Amino acid sequence: MHILIIGAAGMVGSKLTAALLAGGAIGTRPIEKLTLADIVAPDAPQTPIPCTALATDLSMPGAAEKLIATRPDLIFHLAAIVSGEAEADFDKGYAINLDGTRLLLEAIRQAGATEPYCPRLVFTSSIAVFGTPLPAAIPDDMDHTPLTSYGTQKAICELLLADYSRRGFVDGIGIRLPTIVVRPGKPNKAASGFFSGIIREPLNGQEAILPVDESVRHWFASPRAAIGFLLHAATLDTEPLGQRRTLSMPGVSATIADEIAALEKFGGARATSLIRREHDETIARIVAGWPQNFDTQRALALGFVAEASFEDIVRVYIEDELGGQIS
Amino acid sequence: MHILIIGAAGMVGSKLTAALLAGGAIGTRPIEKLTLADIVAPDAPQTPIPCTALATDLSMPGAAEKLIATRPDLIFHLAAIVSGEAEADFDKGYAINLDGTRLLLEAIRQAGATEPYCPRLVFTSSIAVFGTPLPAAIPDDMDHTPLTSYGTQKAICELLLADYSRRGFVDGIGIRLPTIVVRPGKPNKAASGFFSGIIREPLNGQEAILPVDESVRHWFASPRAAIGFLLHAATLDTEPLGQRRTLSMPGVSATIADEIAALEKFGGARATSLIRREHDETIARIVAGWPQNFDTQRALALGFVAEASFEDIVRVYIEDELGGQIS
Repeated sequence: MHILIIGAAGMVGSKLTAALLAGGAIGTRPIEKLTLADIVAPDAPQTPIPCTALATDLSMPGAAEKLIATRPDLIFHLAAIVSGEAEADFDKGYAINLDGTRLLLEAIRQAGATEPYCPRLVFTSSIAVFGTPLPAAIPDDMDHTPLTSYGTQKAICELLLADYSRRGFVDGIGIRLPTIVVRPGKPNKAASGFFSGIIREPLNGQEAILPVDESVRHWFASPRAAIGFLLHAATLDTEPLGQRRTLSMPGVSATIADEIAALEKFGGARATSLIRREHDETIARIVAGWPQNFDTQRALALGFVAEASFEDIVRVYIEDELGGQIS
Repeated sequence: MHILIIGAAGMVGSKLTAALLAGGAIGTRPIEKLTLADIVAPDAPQTPIPCTALATDLSMPGAAEKLIATRPDLIFHLAAIVSGEAEADFDKGYAINLDGTRLLLEAIRQAGATEPYCPRLVFTSSIAVFGTPLPAAIPDDMDHTPLTSYGTQKAICELLLADYSRRGFVDGIGIRLPTIVVRPGKPNKAASGFFSGIIREPLNGQEAILPVDESVRHWFASPRAAIGFLLHAATLDTEPLGQRRTLSMPGVSATIADEIAALEKFGGARATSLIRREHDETIARIVAGWPQNFDTQRALALGFVAEASFEDIVRVYIEDELGGQIS
C-alpha cells in the first residue's frame, strides 16, 4: 500500500515515519511506497521501501490535488500551525489549519468523482476544541467551545471530516492527542513546553524552569503512545464510529507534583534539585484554561492504549530517547 | 441606525422587515436606513425609511464586501440553502451556507482593519446541528453531531461566529430556531411541511396529508416568536454569552396529537376531518432523527420568549394570517 504523511517533518511525523518503515506493513498489507510531505521537505530516510519527500504548502491552490494524484491508500494528516502562531497570525492559522484540511478533503472527493477512491484519512485534532468551563473529567460527548482560533479550526475540521465520511468521500478518523511528553530535543517556546522541560532538562543534567504551581493538573501521553494511536487509527474498523468520527485519546491525568515524583524516582534528588520555580502569570493563566482529565471510554473500548502513570511516561522517554539509561 | 438583512426575501426575512419598519427603531435608536439583500432582490416596501433592495449571491467574490462597504450597524444573516437542497447539491450548500457566511465575517473583519467597526451580527443557526442519539430534552451544552451537510455547515458557522466575536471582529449572536409553524402560504416540499400543513389547510377548508404517526413529537415556535427572537438578539447584551455565542431558542414541544387537539379547539370536527392519514416511510424516517424537545435555560434567562402551548401557536396564526377569524 501507498502511505502519505502530511506534516512528516515534525516530531510526531518523523517518529511515525520511522515506525512505519520499521514495521514495513499496515496490518497485513505491506507498505510499497511512502510519501513524506511538509512545508519544508522532510529528510528522506534510507530504506528499501521507495520513499518520496516533498515540500508542500497545503493551503496553496493545486497542492492537495498534486498529493492526491498518486491515490495514496492511507493518509496521515498531521500538519498544523500551532496554537500560539494561529492566535498571533489569524490569516495563516485559518489558511493552513482550516483551508488546508478542507482542500485535502476536496481533492480526495474530486479524485473519487472520476474513479472510485475512498482512502483512510487519519487526522490529528486537539484537546483545544474544549474550553472552560470544563468538568473534572471531559466525557466523550462534551461539546466544543474552543477558546482559541486553533481550537476553532480543529473543531471545524472535525465537522468536515465527519460530513465527508458520512457522504462516503473519505474514510476519516480524527484523534485528539493529549499533550505529548516527554518531547525530545531542545526547549521550545510553546506555553506547554515546561511539561516536558522539567523532566527532560534535569535528566540531562540541566536546569529547567517551572512557571506554574505543583497543583496544576494536565493530560499526557508519550510520543510512543501517540504513534500507537496513529497506527491503530489506520487499521481500525470505522463503522462503529457513526457520525462521531473523532475521539479523545486515552492518557494520564497528572499534576506537576506527580511529574516531579516520577522524575525523582528515576533521577533522584540530583534531578529534582534542577527544577527552578519561577512563576509566570501569563503561562499560568493560559494553562488554567486547559483540560485536566478525560473519560475516554470510547477510545479505550476501541482498543487505543496509553500509559498508566506518569512514571511510565518518563520510563518511555528514558528507553526511547536516552538509550535506556540516565547519563 | 442602518440595518442590513441578508436573506430578506424569505418568510422570516419579509416578516422581520415589516416588523422593523412598523417599529421604526431598534431599542432607543431610530432606523435611518434599511438594506434588503437576497439571491433575488426582495420587494422594496413603501415606507418613509430609506430602503434599498439588492440581488446578491453572498458566495461570489466581492459580494460581502459590497454589502459591508456601507457599514451597517446591525446585520441579520438569515440566508441559507435549505437542508434538502444542501444534501442534494453538496457544492452549493457549502458555497452558500459555509463560504457565504465566512466571506461575510471576513468582509466585516477587513472593514474593521481600516477603521474601527464591530457591528452586531444576528445569525440564524439551526437545530440541525444536533443529531441522534439525542436525550429526551436537549440541554444548552449538547454537543454537535449533525447528520446532514446543512447541519454541518451551520455548526461550522457557529464556531466561526464565536471565534470572530472572541477576537473582537464582530459582535455576533447565533440563534437556533425551532421549526416555525404555522407557515403562511402554499404547501412546500420540505420534509417538515406537514407540521404547518395539517393546521393551515384545514383552517382554510382544504384537505391536508399527515405522513407520520400522531405520537411524533417535535419542537415549534410561531413566525411571530421567531421575529421576537431576532429583535431581542439585536439588542441583547452579548457580554454574558462568553464563548457560547449561539443559543437554542425556546419553543413548544408538541406531538401531532397535540397539534390536532389545538386545531379542533379552533376549527372543530370540520377542520380535523380534513386531515388525511397517508403514511410516508421516507418522511417518517427523516423526522425520527429530529430533536423532539429542548431545555433552553440560557435563552429563557436571557429574556427570549416563545409560545406556551400549541394552542397559542394556532392562535397566532389565526391572528396574524387570517385576520383574527376562521373563514
